Amino acid sequence: MKLAALGEDRLLAQLLPNLPSNGSVVLGAGDDCAVVEAPGKSKLQLLKTDCVVEGIHFTAKSPPAFVGWKAMARPMSDFAAMSGVPQFALVTMIVPAHKTLDWVKQVYRGLEKAARVFDVTIVGGETSNIKGPAVISVSVTGFVEKHRWVGQSGGKAKDELFVTGRLGGSLRGRHLKFTPRIEESRWLTKHFSIHAMMDLSDGLGADLPRLARASHVGFEVDEVALPLNRGCTTEQAISDGEDYELLFAISPANARALPTRWRKQFSKVPLTRIGRLIPKSKIQNLKWRGYAHFQ
Amino acid sequence: MKLAALGEDRLLAQLLPNLPSNGSVVLGAGDDCAVVEAPGKSKLQLLKTDCVVEGIHFTAKSPPAFVGWKAMARPMSDFAAMSGVPQFALVTMIVPAHKTLDWVKQVYRGLEKAARVFDVTIVGGETSNIKGPAVISVSVTGFVEKHRWVGQSGGKAKDELFVTGRLGGSLRGRHLKFTPRIEESRWLTKHFSIHAMMDLSDGLGADLPRLARASHVGFEVDEVALPLNRGCTTEQAISDGEDYELLFAISPANARALPTRWRKQFSKVPLTRIGRLIPKSKIQNLKWRGYAHFQ
Repeated sequence: MKLAALGEDRLLAQLLPNLPSNGSVVLGAGDDCAVVEAPGKSKLQLLKTDCVVEGIHFTAKSPPAFVGWKAMARPMSDFAAMSGVPQFALVTMIVPAHKTLDWVKQVYRGLEKAARVFDVTIVGGETSNIKGPAVISVSVTGFVEKHRWVGQSGGKAKDELFVTGRLGGSLRGRHLKFTPRIEESRWLTKHFSIHAMMDLSDGLGADLPRLARASHVGFEVDEVALPLNRGCTTEQAISDGEDYELLFAISPANARALPTRWRKQFSKVPLTRIGRLIPKSKIQNLKWRGYAHFQ
Repeated sequence: MKLAALGEDRLLAQLLPNLPSNGSVVLGAGDDCAVVEAPGKSKLQLLKTDCVVEGIHFTAKSPPAFVGWKAMARPMSDFAAMSGVPQFALVTMIVPAHKTLDWVKQVYRGLEKAARVFDVTIVGGETSNIKGPAVISVSVTGFVEKHRWVGQSGGKAKDELFVTGRLGGSLRGRHLKFTPRIEESRWLTKHFSIHAMMDLSDGLGADLPRLARASHVGFEVDEVALPLNRGCTTEQAISDGEDYELLFAISPANARALPTRWRKQFSKVPLTRIGRLIPKSKIQNLKWRGYAHFQ
């Protein structure tokens, strides 16, 4: 069935009744705003929006359930980057009339699956027509305990740099199926003092300089140490992007016990020391420009 | 300057440093998530997302500052519908490479103006490319005191129905410049007990049946009483849509003092009694179908 034959009310009625809810949702999708219980004063509220665009972040041939998964997983990866807990999501589906109802339902299935896996409730759903590519925009709110949030700007010279997972080659398929590192991130801030952290969405070569710049330091990378996905070169690991792995900075003293404890906790997700933060210098600036080239 | 010549970092650097902030913002746009103080436990959190799409909600010829105003004002109108206070906004601009930097900046100017007027802080800004029409998606979070929030479902038979402002003809230009009725809505719930409320985005003929359905009641409208914009017919007032005026239900006893007090408070915004809610009946169902026709 083509969307052109359905009004927005009927489309939303098809999509929304299946949404799971939870105890903090006073009023979910359907009224003017979603209404949820406010987080307590010992927590900070986190907000993030992101979108996936047909022809940019997925293609007309991408399996729609994976498109939905990716649309939800991207903002969640930013929650992981801050060691936050995502709670509520708002979804806007902007879809041309020639798409089928089945396509939209499959996308929603992917959105819901990612939401369920990470204990997030979809509390709002909007749809709009477009004479062009489909767009799925997802906004997520949640919280982080005041003493646990990690930004990009807290890195210090001499901190060691680690990345989770492996890098490169994401566009061969992993970019539609990746797992936001929320569990890993929450474990890290529970047991260690993490100075700075971010998720790698644009590639290490673009993202690490951002973390260094935000922290007012330079960096050195041991390129030989980079954890590569199968069949990938070092250059691909640096520049491909869409890895959605965590990059973080931790003091050398704090880092000592990390690899062993990590392996015990997450036997299937590698953790690799890839370099360190250093004082700003001219050498670092040259290096930085070298990386910028890969963008 | 065409966007194609700018990367996302440089585009965001052009857009974001001008954003105003306020005391509750711990970390605004630029890091992985926005971080804000959590609202207290006596309040409920409200969340709303909405979008405007080129070719649907505005045209390539619409003044971009008005496009930005409309993109921000639409979700705010939903806050008005719930008597909520909007606080934080996340903006996603999805823009084809042939648009100019000036166009994007003007859109942002409109977004910022609407945010400033209603005391909202833009805490996140994403951009994406698209091979198609521009899309601006805005998510807003805020709060409402637990005893003041108004949904669509609280209407009771015999309640009187009021609308603010005038209806019809919005597409001649008002749809780009409307004022979300937040001030009016906050005043209403401060001084009166409002049973049900919504903002009129799809037209009275589509929206009033929604409120009635949510409240499990029917409705009668005195069509002669409808407040018409200049040059509009009754049919236009019922079916044009994009009025962004408030429709609300209030008990007859509570309604008695309302018109006089309203005129004292809001001398420039008309308030009109347009009908009442009634028990569900066959007559009402016919009427409902009659309205549905106008959609």
